[in-house]
Amino acid sequence: GHYVICGFGRIGERVATDLREAGRDLVVIDRSDEPAEQLENQGFLFVQGNAEEEEILRAAGLERAAGLILVLPQDAANVFVALSAREIRPEAGPDGLFIVARTNEQSALNKLKRAGADKVISPLEIGADRIAQTILRPRVDRFMEKVLGVGALDFDLEEIRVSEGSLLDGRSLVEVDFRRRYNAIVVGVLKASGDWRFNPDATVPLDAGDTLIVLGSPARIGEIRAGGQMSLPGQSVK
Amino acid sequence: GHYVICGFGRIGERVATDLREAGRDLVVIDRSDEPAEQLENQGFLFVQGNAEEEEILRAAGLERAAGLILVLPQDAANVFVALSAREIRPEAGPDGLFIVARTNEQSALNKLKRAGADKVISPLEIGADRIAQTILRPRVDRFMEKVLGVGALDFDLEEIRVSEGSLLDGRSLVEVDFRRRYNAIVVGVLKASGDWRFNPDATVPLDAGDTLIVLGSPARIGEIRAGGQMSLPGQSVK
Ligand SMILES: [Ca+2]
Ligand SMILES: [Ca+2]
Repeated sequence: GHYVICGFGRIGERVATDLREAGRDLVVIDRSDEPAEQLENQGFLFVQGNAEEEEILRAAGLERAAGLILVLPQDAANVFVALSAREIRPEAGPDGLFIVARTNEQSALNKLKRAGADKVISPLEIGADRIAQTILRPRVDRFMEKVLGVGALDFDLEEIRVSEGSLLDGRSLVEVDFRRRYNAIVVGVLKASGDWRFNPDATVPLDAGDTLIVLGSPARIGEIRAGGQMSLPGQSVK
Repeated sequence: GHYVICGFGRIGERVATDLREAGRDLVVIDRSDEPAEQLENQGFLFVQGNAEEEEILRAAGLERAAGLILVLPQDAANVFVALSAREIRPEAGPDGLFIVARTNEQSALNKLKRAGADKVISPLEIGADRIAQTILRPRVDRFMEKVLGVGALDFDLEEIRVSEGSLLDGRSLVEVDFRRRYNAIVVGVLKASGDWRFNPDATVPLDAGDTLIVLGSPARIGEIRAGGQMSLPGQSVK
């Protein structure tokens, strides 16, 4: 299924770019017709209109969408659209319509959840936390510089699947010198069996079908993927 | 030394609260006198005025400050104040004046760095990244739920110092059942000797003076600290 993004501001645009790079199908809804040309050039589908109107959500194909991304500037508008969306698609989560919303105020978080959002993200809160961290936890910063090879507060957790016959299939993290090779740290492994390993033993061989949860910088992991050394979910670690 | 915060908007207020909770001395500069009463009640020092004016920075004690936090709403204003601050305090980094700035636009990042900021944080970028992550990396989300015991994209890296005679002094992570006890994962250790251990072996005993780099949720780690089970930097893991 495709993803519907409501709001093409700075956050909406970045999310759209990330999803498109990952090969997801998108429809963007925005009140303004300004994004139309840019979106067309970039190959996005675009519906001009007010996402608070149910027929606009239907025009964006909400009935058959996999997810809805609410990044309108006003919290009240995101709450309203979440409620409308749940009238059309009551089932939440990965088997229904997955709704993720941005909020400006901590106080709107519970309203968004009650309105049907599966996940709520507060960029200002995360940003403030990172700023406080740089001052209160200088060793975290130094750790990231050491691990990532660059000064970066822009750390991220990513998932990497080990596929049949790839470098990690049957080899341990130590054997492939994972940290040095990828400037990244494996913090967990989801075994093909469905079991989790936390702080996994770096000397235990991995198997095809395992998914590694990796701490690294988005830029560096993007580079690794682009170079074909690591893989997108569903692709192999070469 | 104290910290000077320029701008008391949503981000500035959160950063101020975090730093105060950690026992740091603060002076807040804001153009509006609205925050004055709130700040006074909360025990912050407050200078009303335009941070772009050098005498306002001096009134906030910039000459002897440890750090400057630039969270004004406009990127241009943050750039301007960074330049003014570097005229008063040219030395960057932890031995000089540490400057951390928030930016709205990726395009201002290099300008802020050239103007003298040690660190630049882009909340909208981090927020957009987290939103894309919830869709593109669902296993990361499940990992955090497993590790933290709560659904939380609000993960964080924290530092925890092992002090003499504390629980971890002379014991391994496995021995104290660290992950289950604290719902957190140790991704690195800064040894008292200054050496780093990445993906540390969970069966190797730790020593007093080691600093653990821990992946967890801020709320959960806050609780642990409040309960005295874990420690603030410089305090002991009990
Ligand atoms: Ca990312
Ligand atoms: Ca935090």
